[in-house]
Amino acid sequence: MEQSPIEKLISDISKLPGLGRRSAQRIALFLLKNKDKNLSPLIKSLSLSYEKIIECNYCGNIDMQDPCNICTNKSRDSSTICIVEDVSDLWTFEKVGFYRGFYHVLGGALSAMRGIGTDDLKLEKLLSRIKINNTKEIILALSTTIEGQTTSFVIADKLENLKSLKITRLAQGIPIGGEVHYLDENTLNAAFQSRKKIT
Amino acid sequence: MEQSPIEKLISDISKLPGLGRRSAQRIALFLLKNKDKNLSPLIKSLSLSYEKIIECNYCGNIDMQDPCNICTNKSRDSSTICIVEDVSDLWTFEKVGFYRGFYHVLGGALSAMRGIGTDDLKLEKLLSRIKINNTKEIILALSTTIEGQTTSFVIADKLENLKSLKITRLAQGIPIGGEVHYLDENTLNAAFQSRKKIT
Repeated sequence: MEQSPIEKLISDISKLPGLGRRSAQRIALFLLKNKDKNLSPLIKSLSLSYEKIIECNYCGNIDMQDPCNICTNKSRDSSTICIVEDVSDLWTFEKVGFYRGFYHVLGGALSAMRGIGTDDLKLEKLLSRIKINNTKEIILALSTTIEGQTTSFVIADKLENLKSLKITRLAQGIPIGGEVHYLDENTLNAAFQSRKKIT
Repeated sequence: MEQSPIEKLISDISKLPGLGRRSAQRIALFLLKNKDKNLSPLIKSLSLSYEKIIECNYCGNIDMQDPCNICTNKSRDSSTICIVEDVSDLWTFEKVGFYRGFYHVLGGALSAMRGIGTDDLKLEKLLSRIKINNTKEIILALSTTIEGQTTSFVIADKLENLKSLKITRLAQGIPIGGEVHYLDENTLNAAFQSRKKIT
């Protein structure tokens, strides 16, 4: 039997990440109750995004131009590339604003479960960018999950022939505002092993 | 400064009920990462809904036809009207399936805060439906919140002149599967006052 448009709408909304059937139903009703005020602007906004937003062929960021406005920004430091798993990680860096180099968005960490292999990480592109930009430092800003750490190792391994290249990763330790007695074993261990001399 | 389409998309998604900025960002990225697989079908589904789904002028249900398929269903019992706050309540009844009468969807309970007054409850329409259908029973299936109960009283008050009309409300008591020691005071009191003789 063919789904009714209402059923189809709810089922399509419930495919969005983080939404179950009940929240999808609530959203669908919200949209349908006042179609001109709620549904119509959303359709317009989604259609505009579909038309305008593209992926940057250099770094994997999304923007309205390719290369994106970070890759084309002459005032940024072209000698560092920060490797992130996802565009949302890039946004987090940009929101904080202290980092002024380039990015390389992997589009996920290596994951056998989700079928993300080394070929999906755009490493060849990264290598060619390193050569073209004469990159001095690669910052691995991946998640400290097993998948993220495996990915970091694979990338570091791939880059180790490039002698003049410095490869760094984010420091691991107690988050600012964190309480020691709430820390998990691994974090406490990492923080302890990497303890720093107070100067 | 004008918002970029990405910013606008996130802000529009975050206006949906139950979604904050972070979930909106996650959904936007999900849609944009694979536009043809994720974004395009959603736009189509929303546009189809915008075109096809309309409100029933009799009961306030949403459907692809007006009057809706419940109001036009000859096999349903036209002598009862069940009054619900919202289309989602109607869906809940229909999913369970034991009720075979008509509905009247108020579109919300009376609420000074949300600016819903008696004029918004379509009571004139309800009155005319009662007369046309020669309705025997009105079932008030509203929430047991203060707003829902106030609305029930207002409706019952409005209908009390119709001598032959039976007005009922849903029973209040312990939910099935509920444990007595978890019950709030008001529910326990209601359940106690309305206790029934075991036959």
